[in-house]
Order: sequence, then structure tokens, then C-alpha cells
Amino acid sequence: MNINQIEPIARLINEFSKLPSVGKRTAERYAYHIIRASDESVKNFAESLLNIKEKIKFCDVCGNYTEQTPCAFCRERDKKIICVVKEPKDSIAIEKTGNFKGQYHILHGVINPLAGVGPNDIRIKELLTRLDDGITQEVIIATNPDVEGEATALYISRLLKPLGIKVSRIAQGISMGSELEYADEVTLSKALLDRKEI
Amino acid sequence: MNINQIEPIARLINEFSKLPSVGKRTAERYAYHIIRASDESVKNFAESLLNIKEKIKFCDVCGNYTEQTPCAFCRERDKKIICVVKEPKDSIAIEKTGNFKGQYHILHGVINPLAGVGPNDIRIKELLTRLDDGITQEVIIATNPDVEGEATALYISRLLKPLGIKVSRIAQGISMGSELEYADEVTLSKALLDRKEI
Repeated sequence: MNINQIEPIARLINEFSKLPSVGKRTAERYAYHIIRASDESVKNFAESLLNIKEKIKFCDVCGNYTEQTPCAFCRERDKKIICVVKEPKDSIAIEKTGNFKGQYHILHGVINPLAGVGPNDIRIKELLTRLDDGITQEVIIATNPDVEGEATALYISRLLKPLGIKVSRIAQGISMGSELEYADEVTLSKALLDRKEI
Repeated sequence: MNINQIEPIARLINEFSKLPSVGKRTAERYAYHIIRASDESVKNFAESLLNIKEKIKFCDVCGNYTEQTPCAFCRERDKKIICVVKEPKDSIAIEKTGNFKGQYHILHGVINPLAGVGPNDIRIKELLTRLDDGITQEVIIATNPDVEGEATALYISRLLKPLGIKVSRIAQGISMGSELEYADEVTLSKALLDRKEI
């Protein structure tokens, strides 16, 4: 016999274990926490889950999460520069720098032939539509510095250059505050290759 | 601007961050997972939260989680031996051994004067009531081997001994498969003191 097998407990453990990187033990801890929590606070939790599916949608223009479309970025920010990222959370990382004042474009994926994701499966078409009005002068491609991110950057760059739009890629090199000794060879090679005159 | 500040997203991140050991970053990952999940699966998650508060209660007898009281353990298991534990999850750990066939008694806490938890704040009174019928011959105290767990074990032991009930404590010593070299001094002293003739 095992209290984890009582149906409502087993069901909640199963739901928690669907969250990213949550194993059975962690899901159990979350479930016990919920059992001990007040009715009121669990009701709030459940409501916040339902609420998000009801209220959050994708911005028709940039593809970021928003309550209304077009989103605040597309309504209020400068369209001269558009930063292209893979996922909404990447736009948060860039916002945190405080150094980007342009708009975003969320691809919702990167080109990955092995996983069956081609250029038509991500929001490249929508990016081209946004550039139609001729306002945008530069597109910064900020996909991750991995094979798929690089391939996607290259693909978009080849599409946009004939349109006379400046296409740039975020710099790759050794991280600030890191030590050369621990940098991997690919990163260090890239840092040497992309050296800047000072 | 930051999409994490959009009210429904901020609210869900806040709810997830109330779970044990969940920081802001993890709560964000969980929230993004929920935004991307299907309406159906999020509805199921919300329902399983509400469902557990509705259906799971404490067994009036042993204090464990159950759908009906008395629970399956109290209805079906041998009352000659009762194992006293701090929390419901401790009963799961003991069930997993497969070596205990008696009933449980969940204290829902341990005596901890510094945190203001006295003997009347945990389910000791309920344990005494259970012993009234004279069926129980032995009470195994399986609280954790820390200061509060030991104090609670001692307190219960002093209460029960005058009633003619055998009171035992789970053995403390070095873990199976561990190495002496890495055992802490207190554990090793205890293991020496509690040595068994073979």
C-alpha cells in the first residue's frame, strides 16, 4: 500500500511530473506541498493556470506573448531595428541588458532538418511581411550560437541581404569575467578570429 | 518592458515560485511550459489541483492522507504494531521497504520548543487514544535521527512505557553500502555503541 497510489494524489504527481526537468521525487514534493496548502491558495494556483490560457496569446506581428495584439513592443518601440530570436524568453534576456530599444521578432523555433523543422515551420514569412514597409534598416539575428541557430541566421541573412537590409549577428567570443583557461576551443577560436582593434 | 510583467504571466510565475525549492528562474520555465501546453492539458492540471483539495483528507485515526476515513491502513492492517512517523511521506519510505505490515501513526510534526511546537501541537493525544483498546503490543518510533526527532521519540517512549507497551526506535548506524571513512563521527559513535553480536 502506498498513499502515492491514492487516485487524486497519483493524478497530481503525474501532472507535476510533466513540467520540464521535474522527476517523480520532485513531483511528489510539490504534490505534498499542495495537499498541505490552504484551499484558498490552491484555488488561486488553479485559477492562474486557467487564466493564462485564456488571456495570453501570440502577437500577430512579432509572435511574442501578449494580452493584446499588436503587443506593447510592436506598438511603442522603434521599428528601425528588429532583433530576431528563437523563443519569447530570449527577448527577456535581451531586455534585461537594457541596451536594445528596437522591436523583436520571435521565430518560435530554428531550422533543424533532423527534427523535421524547415524554414516554413518557423516565423520567417512573417518577418518578410514586416519588412515590406521599408522602415526597418537593420535586422539583428540573436539565435543561439549552436548548429541550428547558426544555420537559421545564415538562411535569414541570405534572404534579407538582397532587400538592402543590414543583417547582423550577435558577437560570439569568450564570456565577460570568464577565464581563457576554461574557454572551449571553438569559442576561443571564434574569439581570435573575430578580434577587434582597440 | 518585459513579457514576464504581463499580469497573467507574472501571476503564474508567482504561483509556481511558492512551490518548495522553486526559484524565479525555475518558476519562469514552468510558466512558459504552461503557456505552450494545450488548453486541454492545462485544464487537466488545474482540475487535478482542485480535485486533491476536495477529495484528500486526513484519516481520523492515523492522520495519513486518505480519500475515506479510517484509511486503508487502519482498516486492513495489523494493529499489534504501530509505526510512528513525522509526516505522511515517511510512511511511504517505510512501505517501500516491504518489511512492515503494521499500522502507522502520523504525528504531523515533531516537538521543537524553539519553533514553538510542543507535545500538544502534534498528534500524541490521538496516539494514546488508539492504544486504549489494548490490542497494540509495540510502538516503533521512526522519527528522523535529528535533535527534534530524538526528543520526540524520548517523550513518547516515557509516556507509553508505563502503559506496558513495548516502545522501540529504528536503529541508527552507518548506511548500507557506505564507507566508514566518510561516516560522520556521531553516526559512527552510535554504530559502535549499538554494536550487535554476530
